Amino acid sequence: MESKSSNKQNELKLWGGRFTGATDPIMEKFNASITFDKRMWKEDIKGSQAYVRGLEKAGLVTATECQDIIKGLDVVCTEWESNKFVLKPHDEDIHTANERRLTELIGPTAGKLHTGRSRNDQVTVDMKLWLREAVKTTRKHLVEFLQVSISRAKSEIDVLLPGYTHLQRAQPIRWSHWIMCHATALLRDLQRLDQVADRANEMTLGSGALAGNPFGVDRDFLKSLLAFDRVTANSMDATMDRDFVVDFLYWASMTMTHLSRWAEDLILYTTKEFGFVKLADAYSTGSSLMPQKKNADSLELIRGKAGSAFGKLSGFMMSYKGLPSTYNKDLQEDKIACGVLSTLTVNEGQCKAALSPDMLATDLAYYLVRKGVPFREAHSLSGKCVAAAEEKSVSLSSLTMQDLKGISDKFGDDVTSVWDFENSVEQYTSTGGTAKASVSQQIKHMETLLANSSNS
Amino acid sequence: MESKSSNKQNELKLWGGRFTGATDPIMEKFNASITFDKRMWKEDIKGSQAYVRGLEKAGLVTATECQDIIKGLDVVCTEWESNKFVLKPHDEDIHTANERRLTELIGPTAGKLHTGRSRNDQVTVDMKLWLREAVKTTRKHLVEFLQVSISRAKSEIDVLLPGYTHLQRAQPIRWSHWIMCHATALLRDLQRLDQVADRANEMTLGSGALAGNPFGVDRDFLKSLLAFDRVTANSMDATMDRDFVVDFLYWASMTMTHLSRWAEDLILYTTKEFGFVKLADAYSTGSSLMPQKKNADSLELIRGKAGSAFGKLSGFMMSYKGLPSTYNKDLQEDKIACGVLSTLTVNEGQCKAALSPDMLATDLAYYLVRKGVPFREAHSLSGKCVAAAEEKSVSLSSLTMQDLKGISDKFGDDVTSVWDFENSVEQYTSTGGTAKASVSQQIKHMETLLANSSNS
Amino acid sequence: MESKSSNKQNELKLWGGRFTGATDPIMEKFNASITFDKRMWKEDIKGSQAYVRGLEKAGLVTATECQDIIKGLDVVCTEWESNKFVLKPHDEDIHTANERRLTELIGPTAGKLHTGRSRNDQVTVDMKLWLREAVKTTRKHLVEFLQVSISRAKSEIDVLLPGYTHLQRAQPIRWSHWIMCHATALLRDLQRLDQVADRANEMTLGSGALAGNPFGVDRDFLKSLLAFDRVTANSMDATMDRDFVVDFLYWASMTMTHLSRWAEDLILYTTKEFGFVKLADAYSTGSSLMPQKKNADSLELIRGKAGSAFGKLSGFMMSYKGLPSTYNKDLQEDKIACGVLSTLTVNEGQCKAALSPDMLATDLAYYLVRKGVPFREAHSLSGKCVAAAEEKSVSLSSLTMQDLKGISDKFGDDVTSVWDFENSVEQYTSTGGTAKASVSQQIKHMETLLANSSNS
Amino acid sequence: MESKSSNKQNELKLWGGRFTGATDPIMEKFNASITFDKRMWKEDIKGSQAYVRGLEKAGLVTATECQDIIKGLDVVCTEWESNKFVLKPHDEDIHTANERRLTELIGPTAGKLHTGRSRNDQVTVDMKLWLREAVKTTRKHLVEFLQVSISRAKSEIDVLLPGYTHLQRAQPIRWSHWIMCHATALLRDLQRLDQVADRANEMTLGSGALAGNPFGVDRDFLKSLLAFDRVTANSMDATMDRDFVVDFLYWASMTMTHLSRWAEDLILYTTKEFGFVKLADAYSTGSSLMPQKKNADSLELIRGKAGSAFGKLSGFMMSYKGLPSTYNKDLQEDKIACGVLSTLTVNEGQCKAALSPDMLATDLAYYLVRKGVPFREAHSLSGKCVAAAEEKSVSLSSLTMQDLKGISDKFGDDVTSVWDFENSVEQYTSTGGTAKASVSQQIKHMETLLANSSNS
Repeated sequence: MESKSSNKQNELKLWGGRFTGATDPIMEKFNASITFDKRMWKEDIKGSQAYVRGLEKAGLVTATECQDIIKGLDVVCTEWESNKFVLKPHDEDIHTANERRLTELIGPTAGKLHTGRSRNDQVTVDMKLWLREAVKTTRKHLVEFLQVSISRAKSEIDVLLPGYTHLQRAQPIRWSHWIMCHATALLRDLQRLDQVADRANEMTLGSGALAGNPFGVDRDFLKSLLAFDRVTANSMDATMDRDFVVDFLYWASMTMTHLSRWAEDLILYTTKEFGFVKLADAYSTGSSLMPQKKNADSLELIRGKAGSAFGKLSGFMMSYKGLPSTYNKDLQEDKIACGVLSTLTVNEGQCKAALSPDMLATDLAYYLVRKGVPFREAHSLSGKCVAAAEEKSVSLSSLTMQDLKGISDKFGDDVTSVWDFENSVEQYTSTGGTAKASVSQQIKHMETLLANSSNS
Repeated sequence: MESKSSNKQNELKLWGGRFTGATDPIMEKFNASITFDKRMWKEDIKGSQAYVRGLEKAGLVTATECQDIIKGLDVVCTEWESNKFVLKPHDEDIHTANERRLTELIGPTAGKLHTGRSRNDQVTVDMKLWLREAVKTTRKHLVEFLQVSISRAKSEIDVLLPGYTHLQRAQPIRWSHWIMCHATALLRDLQRLDQVADRANEMTLGSGALAGNPFGVDRDFLKSLLAFDRVTANSMDATMDRDFVVDFLYWASMTMTHLSRWAEDLILYTTKEFGFVKLADAYSTGSSLMPQKKNADSLELIRGKAGSAFGKLSGFMMSYKGLPSTYNKDLQEDKIACGVLSTLTVNEGQCKAALSPDMLATDLAYYLVRKGVPFREAHSLSGKCVAAAEEKSVSLSSLTMQDLKGISDKFGDDVTSVWDFENSVEQYTSTGGTAKASVSQQIKHMETLLANSSNS
Repeated sequence: MESKSSNKQNELKLWGGRFTGATDPIMEKFNASITFDKRMWKEDIKGSQAYVRGLEKAGLVTATECQDIIKGLDVVCTEWESNKFVLKPHDEDIHTANERRLTELIGPTAGKLHTGRSRNDQVTVDMKLWLREAVKTTRKHLVEFLQVSISRAKSEIDVLLPGYTHLQRAQPIRWSHWIMCHATALLRDLQRLDQVADRANEMTLGSGALAGNPFGVDRDFLKSLLAFDRVTANSMDATMDRDFVVDFLYWASMTMTHLSRWAEDLILYTTKEFGFVKLADAYSTGSSLMPQKKNADSLELIRGKAGSAFGKLSGFMMSYKGLPSTYNKDLQEDKIACGVLSTLTVNEGQCKAALSPDMLATDLAYYLVRKGVPFREAHSLSGKCVAAAEEKSVSLSSLTMQDLKGISDKFGDDVTSVWDFENSVEQYTSTGGTAKASVSQQIKHMETLLANSSNS
Repeated sequence: MESKSSNKQNELKLWGGRFTGATDPIMEKFNASITFDKRMWKEDIKGSQAYVRGLEKAGLVTATECQDIIKGLDVVCTEWESNKFVLKPHDEDIHTANERRLTELIGPTAGKLHTGRSRNDQVTVDMKLWLREAVKTTRKHLVEFLQVSISRAKSEIDVLLPGYTHLQRAQPIRWSHWIMCHATALLRDLQRLDQVADRANEMTLGSGALAGNPFGVDRDFLKSLLAFDRVTANSMDATMDRDFVVDFLYWASMTMTHLSRWAEDLILYTTKEFGFVKLADAYSTGSSLMPQKKNADSLELIRGKAGSAFGKLSGFMMSYKGLPSTYNKDLQEDKIACGVLSTLTVNEGQCKAALSPDMLATDLAYYLVRKGVPFREAHSLSGKCVAAAEEKSVSLSSLTMQDLKGISDKFGDDVTSVWDFENSVEQYTSTGGTAKASVSQQIKHMETLLANSSNS
């Protein structure tokens, strides 16, 4: 008796013809991808509506049948949109669910839709259509972040602060130079994203389970209907290929790594000890215990996401399985980063205060270089000045002319010109440097690139 | 005006006192962990009920206040159980949600509950209580899988099949030996799980935000109430430590790797080409295109999970952030594996048919060893026999005595005794070997270990 | 006394001026990157020779000094080439080693070389020059592999074998279609590699430690000397950026994943049970114990490398540190794969023998579709035929006309035309399909792409 | 002709009997693991010397042969020790190399050594012996680090500094509490290491290629000779199992993560901005460009290693191949960490200076709690005090009694007692807290644990 009712169950599935035993209910749940892939309902319908037009062109359905199927799918679409679509227990994936509902609506004609198609080519076209939307949204946020970067870099171009290497004060730089540094990295991510999107822009329908399509369906016609650039070149590769998912996850991982480094810098700059930057309350949170706390939680969350993006990449690479469970259509991180950057305030005084004379030790060496001392020797002499200042417990700029002369007789009264942070920064005029002209040039350059890229 | 309404918003949060700007709504959603941590509602209540008894013991709340809070939390508990708990927009995490509801139910007394506590120590105790349950369930499934393994190994101890190395036929072994091989690996996982559970068995309440508890709350009393084995040793470490999450994810990753290798073997054994094993329909699925297909989807899904388990481990290790979003209380894989193993059928004939005489080449070498030929030479002579058989296109056992004598005069008529797979297998009597006695011994050993381990 | 000798030690380093304590010898070893980066000796010299010409152009060294430095570096170069360069204990990296040696050769003038430069911009230009060579070699191997693929696909276009999904026999396909499937994936890798190389094609010299170059060195001049396409846009980003390393490791990880899947298929095809393919002895190994074994070790090693490539990617992403320890200039995997593919033999008979009638169940459904039965119904009817054949223990093609008519009266005598594997394959004529014309078209397409790509 | 010479080549390998084609030289190099596994020469010899005694006990070699082999292997051992062992081109792994050399030394008797053994069980016993030594060394370093931690915590127990959460100043804590926090995490690693070592403590010899040992070799005897605790339970599992490698890499990854967090804190504390700690010159490095720089390179290197440790874990887990290339017998990180910690100096003044009154906001709330205000209200009132102080631009402790009374009339003159950092810290007397007694207790506790653990 049991096998009878179980047969009934199986007939509701797309593959039930030859099965005689019942499916373990846990197995059914375990196997079902519907919870993940139902988010692709729209893409699945769009793909099916294109495919049935391909079937009509190939003479496999009549014009009337084609219209019936298209209209039926429109109804299914409306049901999803208005949250009225009811999932049934045996809807193991979005393809099964939509076709089951179509059958209820228009009867046996629905059974012609899958002719020559397999879920193998169907799911990849769904995923690629879905990814296309995800990329579009994500790209928009990324561009916005770059625009906010440019805009702040422009308006605060005069603010100086210490540049750090190994978290030790290195040389004075412009705040705008710091902004453009991170923007430059994220501009590379924009380029990567465009390449990922381009590589995914190949239409897979007509590949069947693996061998291709035997009914002469016009794949170029399908390609045009679904607005792809190319058709896939090999039907086996087309159904197996999930490179575009891995590419996208890699892109996400890189972008989050860049945002994470940006956030890490800002977390440091908002500490009491650094104090260069103050986050807007809108992007801060407090403590349930310590009333004075104001935490840069927004930045910490961004930083944490780099880990989970990488986790998704590595998990997917390890199993290289095709479930789109790993996407996140609306990556909030870029938006938050945008909000943080456009609302934070810079404490110019604190930035200036942190510029200590020892950061000009390189300039002191360069002073000697300009007097003809080979750099390596100049570096060593300047190092001795630093040591002398430390020993006297004074700042480097407070060494007397006698102190300096004791170290090298090349030192003259004009050495005082070295002790000016603005002068120091303005030396770096070469392309990419921190001088005002150079940073302005970078800003202009990125503006142009973005303008061109947005046009495309 | 805006700041006023925003202040109101913030007062609903646990940390709102000092904030004056409104929170970006995206930020609020981005920051909220409630979607993840609401699953810990029961543990959060349990922890709070213990903590308030600690406060009473320390004289910080009266007996009446203590009872009011405990009863109020009982009501909150009932609301969750009956699906009536309503989350409000500002419930950023489960701790905030439960305390907010308690306040609505019993008024300002609720405000005493958090005295000397921080969400930092609160969340870790919640997580550990939660993990304890997860471990318990998972452990049960794992033991069941081992028991099914033992039971099939016992009842099918006489079935022989080829053992493979590098996917090439190597030596005949017992099917039960193969079962016990995988069971042995999973028994190590059981031991690992017990060690993970033991290491997590430390009570964190009383650690505050990081400095400890200043009100003399008796941590040992709390430990007993919550049935932990030990209290944590350092309050900073206690609030930062998420080792137990990483340990658990590592355990999951290892266990899934072992199940994955088990599944991979079975996937191969169910191919048309190998054909040793047939899965029950309950654990197979079909194709939407190809009517004849019967896929070992259950096994593929198990295999795929190893990747995602590792993805979670690596993502978490990279960010080492404390969200329990990565747990999966009820790991279905073990259950499925259990079902698959207990229902599959072995095709004994096909197994036997796959035992080809070349797999006895080692035995042929051993035959010579027993005649006094050093192994290295015997190996080389047996290799020559294999080559001779290949050249004549006959099986190794069909070489004539003349052929054999031509290679070594140590060969005698008793060489025919080598061509018996049963004899071959029965040689491996040393501990852990594939002889019947040896496999039976393994089964007995594991039964004893499981019996002892279940008692604990 | 100790500090004196330690001072002496420190003076030999590039940064020793201000240090007074000795370095822990373990620390020195731990810190030294020389074991990794000495492989970049040639690039380091090349970069320095360009840089000194930039210094001359900017008036920081005289023409004579410039020539002295260039010639001195030529000598250093010769020493490396002839294996005569002697590393000294304090050569902590390749930059220090080369400058130290230059100083010994030409005296204090050598000290001018580093003017305005930092190891931060120096190391990145070295790494990029080095990567350029690595990419060139790797690209060549990849193209060779694709060419071998094309050549075998062409010459063995008539061989049929089973196509598998879920490791179960699915539909008959061409062996050449299988080859082109994997080649298509690797062609994407070629495109990725070119994009990685292009993105890395930015000259970093002139970025200093982070702020830029203060001496007016002409970066475009340096760019031309070193044959880069562009100069980097922001000096901070230029010195921090290791995206090109991560990009390259990601590329390697993807490529190895593709080669790994190719290898996995072949490993299966070389088992006794499948038996479609025989590896050349040149790519096989044996067993120290079992004389009959012939293992596809070459393929297993390729498969194993996917894991270690990913390990390098994930390790690097986690620390994002700049050591080029992770490169492998000469990726042997492609070469091996090339050798394996060009020497293996296909067992056409075994391939044909594996084509079983049940693989034509889809065609049986399509037969009914062509008679006007909706696909979904046809799929179910064909499934019933499969079940009927299983019940009678005969092959699908051995069902009688009566059997078939009992399932659907659409079946007619022309059903016999279905039982022809060649016919089955030849149906798949759409772009990317497995029909002969379609595979030939794929081969032609890839030949054209490769021809164009090689020209660039 | 070629095949002849190639045959000769192959005969030199352990498996060459049946091979007729030559091996591709790249393949030979690609396949050879000798570069990795030669480091296990001593373990390989030790294992063979034990195994031959097992063969003697089983009557497979005579007492004389046994002695010849043992003595021959002693000679091989001496050659390795004195760096005189010469690797030959066909020594594909350490097992082949040692047996080849033994044969040269003692002739054909050497060919009896491998009787009933396979490289499969041989390599695992080598790896486990090797790991045992690695664990011993590593364990010693870890214990030393913990001892240095305890010793500094003891001697500097009176130093206070800010405790941070989210990198914002949270509450005053003891410097010794910070030390013990990290030591507590590393103590867990010590426990993990002991569990890893125990799990690996199973002897694999006698498992053969996969089926076991057919000659009655006494595995318990071998176990005793090689000082293992147990023999492995299943011969297939024994030869496949690399769990002990993964376990060890996981351990390394966790330990490096903990050291990395320790290093990250110290990197921050050594910045100019924090300035709590000064590294010894012995663990610092300079800049080739900026003479004033003193970088905490030792700490950065430790931090970077966490990434590469994880990379090894993930690479290995992905391929789960058995090469011990991933070990690092002498993990230098612990030693360096030990050196850093024992030589750094604490700037007590700067620590004290960083303790700002707003860090006492929790204490201010607790003051109110002690006056009977429910905590939640007290938290809010204290938050208002913080806001009031910010508005007046004064420190929290400078609010007048009038200011305070305006916020809550519970404030009285005794509020001044709150403004004492020492008092604040001394409140946290519960187990694990930051009060002096509590930290002393932690130190004592760890000393006891270490003492016991060292005894074992």
